[in-house]
Amino acid sequence: MIGPELERLIHLLAKLPGLGPRSARRAALELLKKREQLLQPLAAAMVEADAKLVTCPVCHNLDVQSPCGICQDTKREPDLLCVVEDVADLWALERTRAFKGRYHVLGGVLSALAGITPQVLKIDKLIMRAKEMQAREVLLALSATVDGQATAHFVADRLREEGIAATRLGHGMPVGGELDYLDEGTLMAALAARRVA
Amino acid sequence: MIGPELERLIHLLAKLPGLGPRSARRAALELLKKREQLLQPLAAAMVEADAKLVTCPVCHNLDVQSPCGICQDTKREPDLLCVVEDVADLWALERTRAFKGRYHVLGGVLSALAGITPQVLKIDKLIMRAKEMQAREVLLALSATVDGQATAHFVADRLREEGIAATRLGHGMPVGGELDYLDEGTLMAALAARRVA
Repeated sequence: MIGPELERLIHLLAKLPGLGPRSARRAALELLKKREQLLQPLAAAMVEADAKLVTCPVCHNLDVQSPCGICQDTKREPDLLCVVEDVADLWALERTRAFKGRYHVLGGVLSALAGITPQVLKIDKLIMRAKEMQAREVLLALSATVDGQATAHFVADRLREEGIAATRLGHGMPVGGELDYLDEGTLMAALAARRVA
Repeated sequence: MIGPELERLIHLLAKLPGLGPRSARRAALELLKKREQLLQPLAAAMVEADAKLVTCPVCHNLDVQSPCGICQDTKREPDLLCVVEDVADLWALERTRAFKGRYHVLGGVLSALAGITPQVLKIDKLIMRAKEMQAREVLLALSATVDGQATAHFVADRLREEGIAATRLGHGMPVGGELDYLDEGTLMAALAARRVA
């Protein structure tokens, strides 16, 4: 009863995080009910974002410029680096306006089970970047999960070998929580209380 | 820090039912991470669905043909009509394969608070259609909410004035629940046990 066009739309919508098969059906109907206010602008916004947004070759942030606006921002402290798992985490930290350095988006955390090795995350490239920018501090702003903390340990060890100070987010971050879900106040407190890894 | 292209994409994604501002950010990042597997096919599927799917002028179902496949299906009982609130409810009933008549999608239920009057829902058009098809039964498959049941009462009264039998879904539908969220077994039991309204 549902034709292939709708079936395909629902199937693809269901792949978005946060939408299951049933909510994807509701979303498809909502799109087709509000074609001019929602479906057409959303399709156009997706095509535009795909065409304009590129991954920064320096820090792996998403931006319309390459290198990204943060990498090009000369007002930022040149020897302060923050390592995050994902672009969403970078956004969460930027919303606090409390960090004045630059970022390095890892694109994941180490996981023996998922086969995510230091090679996959290009940890060598991160260490090289920290050395080249003569970083006085590398803040490892990774989630307080087992894999996140194991990754922070691993990167901190590698940085220590190079004589670079590694810090972590301070108290305030709930144990077992994910960085992107913290409220901004807690995240600001954690930034202020960062400590040697 | 988030450019206008991304801001716009996130803003539009957040309008989908089931996605809030935070999950819309995650969805936008997921789309931009999986451009070829997800973003581009989804944008294309949306444009295709918008171009091909039309609302059936007879029953208000969504289909690539007009009138829709169900209205054109000559194997269906010609004098049996089912009134539903939404296309999602029509799909839910079709999944049971237990209803062999045709449908009428109201597009909402009566609500004094929201200003949804019988005129807005074009109840007159529904009564006219039931008369013209000489319906022996009109099944009012509306949600078991206060507004849904008030709408069923109102339509049943109008049908009774025309000498047309109105039925409702039987026991099995949980009180206060919404039709689209029923499992198929419960929905089949409710179809089998429908009673005079």
